Amino acid sequence: MRKLLVIGIGAGNPDHMTVQAISGLNRADVLFIPDKGAGKTDLAELRREICDRFVTNPKSRRVEFDVPVRAEPAPSYRSTVDDWHEAIAAIYEGLIRDEIAEDGCGAFLIWGDPSLYDSALRILERVRLRGNIAFELEVIPGITAIQALAASHKMALNRIGDSILITTGRRLTEEGLAGNAGSTVVMLDGKCAFNKLDDRDVVIHWGAYLGTPDEIILSGLLGDVGAEIEKVREEARRDKGWIMDTYLLRKPGEPQGD
Amino acid sequence: MRKLLVIGIGAGNPDHMTVQAISGLNRADVLFIPDKGAGKTDLAELRREICDRFVTNPKSRRVEFDVPVRAEPAPSYRSTVDDWHEAIAAIYEGLIRDEIAEDGCGAFLIWGDPSLYDSALRILERVRLRGNIAFELEVIPGITAIQALAASHKMALNRIGDSILITTGRRLTEEGLAGNAGSTVVMLDGKCAFNKLDDRDVVIHWGAYLGTPDEIILSGLLGDVGAEIEKVREEARRDKGWIMDTYLLRKPGEPQGD
Ligand SMILES: C[S@@+](CC[C@H](N)C(=O)[O-])C[C@H]1O[C@@H](n2cnc3c(N)ncnc32)[C@H](O)[C@@H]1O
Ligand SMILES: C[S@@+](CC[C@H](N)C(=O)[O-])C[C@H]1O[C@@H](n2cnc3c(N)ncnc32)[C@H](O)[C@@H]1O
Repeated sequence: MRKLLVIGIGAGNPDHMTVQAISGLNRADVLFIPDKGAGKTDLAELRREICDRFVTNPKSRRVEFDVPVRAEPAPSYRSTVDDWHEAIAAIYEGLIRDEIAEDGCGAFLIWGDPSLYDSALRILERVRLRGNIAFELEVIPGITAIQALAASHKMALNRIGDSILITTGRRLTEEGLAGNAGSTVVMLDGKCAFNKLDDRDVVIHWGAYLGTPDEIILSGLLGDVGAEIEKVREEARRDKGWIMDTYLLRKPGEPQGD
Repeated sequence: MRKLLVIGIGAGNPDHMTVQAISGLNRADVLFIPDKGAGKTDLAELRREICDRFVTNPKSRRVEFDVPVRAEPAPSYRSTVDDWHEAIAAIYEGLIRDEIAEDGCGAFLIWGDPSLYDSALRILERVRLRGNIAFELEVIPGITAIQALAASHKMALNRIGDSILITTGRRLTEEGLAGNAGSTVVMLDGKCAFNKLDDRDVVIHWGAYLGTPDEIILSGLLGDVGAEIEKVREEARRDKGWIMDTYLLRKPGEPQGD
């Protein structure tokens, strides 16, 4: 049976690679490198750099592949994602069938950790359900952008005994800051959703390009730094052509009672 | 000035160590290994194993220290934590002053990631505020028990576009499952709080001793496996003398709409 490794490669710094991830890379005969098209070439570049540096297995081949661009979310967000995932599942199925020998091993290199806002595991589940090829799956965890954010700010994510909500920019805009949320981490925010919150007396710890040489971090009260972060973000995005940022929001002070 | 490294060592598997964590270990002259007393010797043992395997710096020394046991949470949970942290801060201050040369480097080895339900960063902040010694701080992220849980279950933490709440057993018991919580991860639960939920039509993905040779994982609907997990957990805890477990809860099916 074919073996598939889904390997978390960390969130920007090649030194995030774990011993387990490095040995996974070297167990694979084939390494799949997605090229997410325009703007994301730096990310494909980082995957290549990781392979150059850590792969010592002489039998290992790299296969780059294009990921179809997602249609604009209309009329229903979920149905667009559905079509998109089905299209990627067909591509994955082809790659697995054509590039990996029947007793071979292939690896997908996943940004950050495979469990966090990444569709590879869900898509491989679709491939399995299509029923055309069988494979054994193994997942190797990786450092997430959230761990990288906390490390760069030298902070804990939670206050003592308190909870942490991980959410998206889209949800933050729709739902606002949850009343009882101790700390809220926001990912996948292309629009500075923090600047749409009415309450400006909220601490933000923001980071872009975390773990890379271009890392930028800023923090303060939204009322003081919200506009500046938006400006810095926009300039950086224009200069580089792309940006990835993550941030934590929390009311100032330790929680009452508990 | 003294340099302090706060290094995430992963959540049970020495292969969770990152390249950055290994190089951090080897930059330090002194490695601090907490010994959390009875039952937790296996954890101190894993820290020693990590040092034995990855430390190549011949100048490196290890210093083991006792962490005072926390008083029972009475009358106020927060004030007990406060006293406890102040006591540990005094110990950390002594260790830093006595064990690290004035231009030296010391490292604290932190289970999982330093940002997640760990008090070391908060305690070092207290040491800084005491004003007796100055130091520069650097944090190195690590694989958390949450990443290890997701990897072992080969699952994503979030449903598409949905949020993730990370909380404690105590809070789950007090607050129940949040109505809109996409997925809930529970840590620090000594009492199988999932079995106090009225709604039994909830999927649980449970894991204990994740990443270690003793790892146990179970999953299913609470109504089907809740009692079994509690039994398995109690037996394992009795056999080994300690247990650490983490789990994810979520209503079955993909979320409606979005
Ligand atoms: C599709 S999600 C993938 C997350 C990834 N699986 C992880 O574990 O971090 C992409 C989002 O992750 C965050 N992100 C990933 N890498 C980042 C980095 N180096 N700096 C800042 N944010 C990052 C951003 O919020 C971005 O929108
Ligand atoms: C004080 S917290 C520390 C968490 C740690 N900093 C991390 O990043 O995973 C301890 C809790 O983490 C979880 N945990 C840590 N290691 C674990 C493991 N190997 N297996 C299962 N749960 C674990 C348990 O919920 C435990 O109660």
